[in-house]
Amino acid sequence: MDKFALTKLSYGMYAIGTKDAQNRFCGCIANSLMQITAEPATVALSINHDNYTNQCIKDTKEFSVCVLGEKTNPLIIGTFGFRSAKDIDKFANVNHKTAGDLPVCTDSCAYLLCKLISTTETSTHTIFIASVEDCEILSDDTPMTYAYYHNIIKGNSPKSAPTYITQS
Amino acid sequence: MDKFALTKLSYGMYAIGTKDAQNRFCGCIANSLMQITAEPATVALSINHDNYTNQCIKDTKEFSVCVLGEKTNPLIIGTFGFRSAKDIDKFANVNHKTAGDLPVCTDSCAYLLCKLISTTETSTHTIFIASVEDCEILSDDTPMTYAYYHNIIKGNSPKSAPTYITQS
Repeated sequence: MDKFALTKLSYGMYAIGTKDAQNRFCGCIANSLMQITAEPATVALSINHDNYTNQCIKDTKEFSVCVLGEKTNPLIIGTFGFRSAKDIDKFANVNHKTAGDLPVCTDSCAYLLCKLISTTETSTHTIFIASVEDCEILSDDTPMTYAYYHNIIKGNSPKSAPTYITQS
Repeated sequence: MDKFALTKLSYGMYAIGTKDAQNRFCGCIANSLMQITAEPATVALSINHDNYTNQCIKDTKEFSVCVLGEKTNPLIIGTFGFRSAKDIDKFANVNHKTAGDLPVCTDSCAYLLCKLISTTETSTHTIFIASVEDCEILSDDTPMTYAYYHNIIKGNSPKSAPTYITQS
């Protein structure tokens, strides 16, 4: 078994936005997101139990998905992917707007507004299944793939990522 | 709501292999597949209820995932994506081997052998959650993304795809 075979799976890069119990905007970076049905449009998203955003989505039952592009400022990934929203306001230094009542990074290709339908628990991650209530294209930038993030931007993944591989 | 925003989500292209009740190899093309946990490695896969492969995975509780590459013969996509395994032997004209007891297309970047853990039903698709029992890299070809398939190969999606959009 060569676990690096799993690095051959393709993903996009997404900034997830939601709100916490104090009604503060919060969020994180995700790559494990996919559409699961076309009509009505639904998506599945995998987020680690340890991520603050996980509990916030369970509480508010809604989240936004911003599709990061190749020209998106990589600062967003640093802020959203490697810090906890418990400690900092992740949207403070990121261009954003409010859509519905959710935060949306405007420096992205497109956004989806999602309403939670159900959750499935695994040992380390929750799979959130959600309906797409609204979605809009924001730019014609090329969506950033996880491969682009690793190979071109030379980015890393935090240990909480579904696709994290221990470097031996 | 601009449904084309959903086309900004990124995916790979995968040939799924399994067996039917007559122990015949069968399978289909999928793009909605993602890793959901790192340790142990598990994946989620969305397949339409109408796909023959759907019932076969429910019956056999196992499937293979072959990661198609940019150099993979597009004939595989035509055979696996737009025909039904009820009618034809999809592996007859495709280079393959048996791994475990599952069929694996050898003209691909890597393969995973997966064992079904659970299913979640939606209105049109089943989400299969499965453990990765084995995985190997087969070539250093670049994994084909769904965007590459659409933009470079100029491929289409069947109506049963989770990401199908009605062209108006």
